[in-house]
Amino acid sequence: MVFGAIWMVAGCVPNDQSSNQTETAQEIAVDYELGDEQVHAFWSGNIDPILTVPSGSVIKVATQEASAKQLDMNSTVEDLGNLSFDPIHPLTGPVYVEGAEPGDVLKVTLHEVEMGDWGWTAIIPGFGFLADEFDEPWLKTFELGKDRKTAKFSENIEIPLKPFPGVMGVAPDTEDSLSTIPPRANGGNMDDPNMTEGSTIYFPVFVEGALFSIGDTHAAQGHGEVCGTAIEAPMNIIYEVEVIKNGRAISEPQYETEDYYAVTAFAETIDEASKKATRYMIDYLEEEKGLRRNEAYALCSLAGDLKTAEVVDVPHMLVSMHIPKSIFKD
Amino acid sequence: MVFGAIWMVAGCVPNDQSSNQTETAQEIAVDYELGDEQVHAFWSGNIDPILTVPSGSVIKVATQEASAKQLDMNSTVEDLGNLSFDPIHPLTGPVYVEGAEPGDVLKVTLHEVEMGDWGWTAIIPGFGFLADEFDEPWLKTFELGKDRKTAKFSENIEIPLKPFPGVMGVAPDTEDSLSTIPPRANGGNMDDPNMTEGSTIYFPVFVEGALFSIGDTHAAQGHGEVCGTAIEAPMNIIYEVEVIKNGRAISEPQYETEDYYAVTAFAETIDEASKKATRYMIDYLEEEKGLRRNEAYALCSLAGDLKTAEVVDVPHMLVSMHIPKSIFKD
Repeated sequence: MVFGAIWMVAGCVPNDQSSNQTETAQEIAVDYELGDEQVHAFWSGNIDPILTVPSGSVIKVATQEASAKQLDMNSTVEDLGNLSFDPIHPLTGPVYVEGAEPGDVLKVTLHEVEMGDWGWTAIIPGFGFLADEFDEPWLKTFELGKDRKTAKFSENIEIPLKPFPGVMGVAPDTEDSLSTIPPRANGGNMDDPNMTEGSTIYFPVFVEGALFSIGDTHAAQGHGEVCGTAIEAPMNIIYEVEVIKNGRAISEPQYETEDYYAVTAFAETIDEASKKATRYMIDYLEEEKGLRRNEAYALCSLAGDLKTAEVVDVPHMLVSMHIPKSIFKD
Repeated sequence: MVFGAIWMVAGCVPNDQSSNQTETAQEIAVDYELGDEQVHAFWSGNIDPILTVPSGSVIKVATQEASAKQLDMNSTVEDLGNLSFDPIHPLTGPVYVEGAEPGDVLKVTLHEVEMGDWGWTAIIPGFGFLADEFDEPWLKTFELGKDRKTAKFSENIEIPLKPFPGVMGVAPDTEDSLSTIPPRANGGNMDDPNMTEGSTIYFPVFVEGALFSIGDTHAAQGHGEVCGTAIEAPMNIIYEVEVIKNGRAISEPQYETEDYYAVTAFAETIDEASKKATRYMIDYLEEEKGLRRNEAYALCSLAGDLKTAEVVDVPHMLVSMHIPKSIFKD
């Protein structure tokens, strides 16, 4: 744990450069730092926090890739056969945020997502959107690194990198140990490629201290993550936590970027998750923008975009709906 | 029908301007023109063509809005109660393309989509993604026009306009009259907001001459079209048809822009449509890019985006998967 270290946000420049610079200088003061040693691989309200911080703290964490170091750059498809699902996903945390109580909202801002040195993608028999049609294991590893813009998939194919944490969540209100595979109301394995550097995610709080954890970092993933894995890679992430009291109640995580506001919804089918996401967006437009409910429904039809996040984290699919901020003139 | 008229593509400039201009001049020579009088409101292989053209022809058509002129700028919610579904959707066509035979592919390039002067959006009881929760009729009309960038939804909300045809399709191989509400393998009411000016759509051909029709033009629509309507507006469209023989066989429409290639799939659930779209993209990557099937599946997971087009054209939902062209280096 480090207090007061200064980290530069990628792409920004120091304050003391020429006055006609166009980019605003931004320095993120990191208050705490966590390595990737203390992880947990299930969700519960019963896991002791590894760190306690006040609201407003900035935390730098290291994350393991999804296999919890069972695989490395030299792994082969044979190693995949020996993979244990028990340590999946190793999550860095939980972090207890002082003052957070059930009914509050935890605001988490992703200030920086810095890619690690390597990653892997696999087809794991029995897992994936078309599991019945792909029964042979398959593995590929990738050289990555914080300055890489693409990953080499083959001689002719380079995949653009857009690193993000597949899992972010707060503790559920249960003493049971829940699998980290499906997303739930506490967030978790949402695998939404839009929750990346610069975005702010809002979580409903279910237990005292919220108990926030993060991991399952992905270097690249399409909407759907259809084969069941992304480019699974370790990373360093700088995030900020803030407790919001007496705000609008939310049932599941929501998020925003400079460009849009988004709601998320999980369900056992994409159809049902899409319906929930539509209802959540109608609630948002009614409660935050003052629209009548039928106006909000019509506005979702004209400017709201249903987006599939993942279709493989059984039994829960995750769908979001985005609404552009530019449509609101006040 | 007009032969040889010259239309300028929006945003382009004539050839004779200064030599340091950055935009390339483009003139689209329109070979044929169709007004909005001759429409049909069902799909069948049995409808007589209103125009016969050689492959390579450019056609300018006018489209009616979805209500077939039952509504206008001054309509009220009371008029909505008297709406007959029989004339929905009025489609301009069909156009017989010489040489097109079952098994061929019809390539349709949307050169220009020019918005009409007005539009409407409605919540129609019994119709829409949340039909059980919205049982009151609701109607709004909008002032539009070819130079408008936004539509006024309220004093504080302006919706960006992105006009596109909700319906494009070829005739199915049946003499029955099929409803225009659900999309099918022949295309139809795909309501995919990405099929807009500049995109090229590929249709499997089921009957001689293909019999292409277009209509249900939308001034703005989110992915999903959740309330069941977009901003429904009349338009003028310039499109080009080309018959492709001995090409790759496709089961349902596919499309592309400068940036990506896309497959579409319909099904009675979003889940099943998403699975079909994933399979179609795997087929594309295997057949056109030479990937092995498991590599193609993994590539879909890393760089393929499942996108919901519409969730309301019962009983068929439409999903697309996009793959960026930039990932392919040869």
